[in-house]
Amino acid sequence: METKGYVHVYTGNGKGKTTAAFGLALRALCAGKGVYVGQFVKSMKYNETKIERLFNGSDPAFGRIRIEQLGRGCFIGKDPELADAEAARKGWARCADLLRSGEYDVVILDELTIALHFGLLSTAVVLDVLRSRHPAVEVVITGRYAPQALIDAADLVTEMCDVKHYYTQGVLSRDGIDR
Amino acid sequence: METKGYVHVYTGNGKGKTTAAFGLALRALCAGKGVYVGQFVKSMKYNETKIERLFNGSDPAFGRIRIEQLGRGCFIGKDPELADAEAARKGWARCADLLRSGEYDVVILDELTIALHFGLLSTAVVLDVLRSRHPAVEVVITGRYAPQALIDAADLVTEMCDVKHYYTQGVLSRDGIDR
Repeated sequence: METKGYVHVYTGNGKGKTTAAFGLALRALCAGKGVYVGQFVKSMKYNETKIERLFNGSDPAFGRIRIEQLGRGCFIGKDPELADAEAARKGWARCADLLRSGEYDVVILDELTIALHFGLLSTAVVLDVLRSRHPAVEVVITGRYAPQALIDAADLVTEMCDVKHYYTQGVLSRDGIDR
Repeated sequence: METKGYVHVYTGNGKGKTTAAFGLALRALCAGKGVYVGQFVKSMKYNETKIERLFNGSDPAFGRIRIEQLGRGCFIGKDPELADAEAARKGWARCADLLRSGEYDVVILDELTIALHFGLLSTAVVLDVLRSRHPAVEVVITGRYAPQALIDAADLVTEMCDVKHYYTQGVLSRDGIDR
């Protein structure tokens, strides 16, 4: 049986990148797979992070999930500071260990591309870990501005293209819909 | 407090449309909202449909979810038959009732655009029901080939653009990842 894992990248400026990654997490959990989500840059706990409580209960048919916030919060609009780079490096060391060990079937690296784009992490280092990861691990990387070298190295890339967004109607981020 | 709901369309040929819709369902459920998913065309039960069991348990902090298969299965590659149109019309009548009643906070109409594209349902009829729905209902419509009139009427449209897919490497649909 083939157990090779693949690398997905969900990028672009439209809504749906993190959302699709959590949809995939849900599908994997429902198939009994273990899922790790490392959230770079974001420090705010979105509603979906509550599923840790639900899936780590007593029903053995579902997989287990672990979600960790690896950043100091969003620095976009201001400049990232040294402490943001330090947090990203520490978070990446954690993810690299999990990618190599194969402890989780699916590893989601949420907003990793933002950390790459702003130079908090080196794309070359990330690609090197992806290549040397446990071969069964499925990896999902989300965020705007995915570097071309990552797109080249990925097996599946979807660009979420923003055709139209309700933000332009003045709709603010809503609890349970946008976060 | 603003309780207006909006209409999302996730279209395009890339991976992530149904997945993002289920990610949004998850976020809404975690915020205590009620979610209905009507799946047009698809008759196969994807892994994520198992969450009905998990969310409809005893924890009152989470919303309730109902998932229904409204089609006879995928007819793509052959022609849709009269019975497919009949199933779509019956399914749509069910969804129209729920859209008008406001019984669920979020209504996901998965692969509805396929039913529109193949003429199983009329776009004008669908738009009319969307306009006359309970104003608080958030609607998410997924599938390829979204008709222009639907895109015009929607508040948020993301096109999932297929930059690269592992199907082209010969990777078959995998349990817990692709379905």
